[in-house]
Amino acid sequence: MHYYPKPILDLIDCIAKLPGIGVKTGERLALHILKSPKAEAEKLARSIAMVKEHIRFCSKCFGLSDKPVCDICENPARMPHVLCVVEQPADMVAIEKSGAFRGRYHILQGVLSPMDGVGPDKIRIRELLDRLHEEKTEEVILATGTSLEGETTASFLSDRLKESGVRITRIASGVPIGGDLKYIDQVTLKRAMEGRYAL
Amino acid sequence: MHYYPKPILDLIDCIAKLPGIGVKTGERLALHILKSPKAEAEKLARSIAMVKEHIRFCSKCFGLSDKPVCDICENPARMPHVLCVVEQPADMVAIEKSGAFRGRYHILQGVLSPMDGVGPDKIRIRELLDRLHEEKTEEVILATGTSLEGETTASFLSDRLKESGVRITRIASGVPIGGDLKYIDQVTLKRAMEGRYAL
Repeated sequence: MHYYPKPILDLIDCIAKLPGIGVKTGERLALHILKSPKAEAEKLARSIAMVKEHIRFCSKCFGLSDKPVCDICENPARMPHVLCVVEQPADMVAIEKSGAFRGRYHILQGVLSPMDGVGPDKIRIRELLDRLHEEKTEEVILATGTSLEGETTASFLSDRLKESGVRITRIASGVPIGGDLKYIDQVTLKRAMEGRYAL
Repeated sequence: MHYYPKPILDLIDCIAKLPGIGVKTGERLALHILKSPKAEAEKLARSIAMVKEHIRFCSKCFGLSDKPVCDICENPARMPHVLCVVEQPADMVAIEKSGAFRGRYHILQGVLSPMDGVGPDKIRIRELLDRLHEEKTEEVILATGTSLEGETTASFLSDRLKESGVRITRIASGVPIGGDLKYIDQVTLKRAMEGRYAL
């Protein structure tokens, strides 16, 4: 690969390191960026810098935000007493797209995975318990994935929350077992949300 | 798509605009960049800026370079009297990888395409003719693609160069008809280079 000038090799290298992108696609994209208008390339570079600089975690739900508290947590039109617990920000976005939920979210930023050394103190469970207290939550919908870890996390949370007296529900298994929430189609997600059952 | 904070939406948008990348992959890559170490993301952003800032065309061969004259044109070990004419920088790189050619290149930066209004004055033919004169070229290898436009360009150049007395060759049609040079495997390219015939 020493056939391009160094700045191009550096760019190919950076792009090829992204997940699911190899050297061939890296070469193709680097040459595209090289040919595209300067303003467009600058916008891409700036967007990358902006994301790293301005995105933080919402101090309430731990989703992604460019403000201390995110739009959903701040929105008075969202039901304040129903919390939907998900693994990752992308899972929250998938549920939002389905339009089946009008409450608020809590993003765990992970799942319990004893094999990988991820215990309850490594994900945002403490913060969830604090919120139930402060926000007078009436229902917690457990919308972690249906993978082994997702199921384990849901049943761990169910046990942990039982004594709080809050209604605990789990999204229905319209979601195929073993699936990753963010790749599920919106109709299935809507079904799962509607078919949730008490634990 | 109004479910992510604006800086993330901007980044997804920029990535999704790249050729062959859609919104789904844009989302996946944007979230990866968000999670990756800051130094890595900065390196990517900087690489994009560097490429736009430092890459220019070599003043001799019109390939990509970060200096006024590129490494290959400056390399005294390359045969100075054999020129390989290609459409694009990526085609040159494909031939370099095959290791079948030790001369120098001339990058046309396009092909003749009357349908798209690309005539002889829109690609670097004038500059090729000047080089033949200045560099005492003995052989010109026409290594444009085997698409209709590539073949047309090769035969146009062949006619145009005939009177110069230079030996004119065309890479052998080991390259499948309709193919794009930069995607051909190295063995086929090597065969095509070795099997070149006089026009």
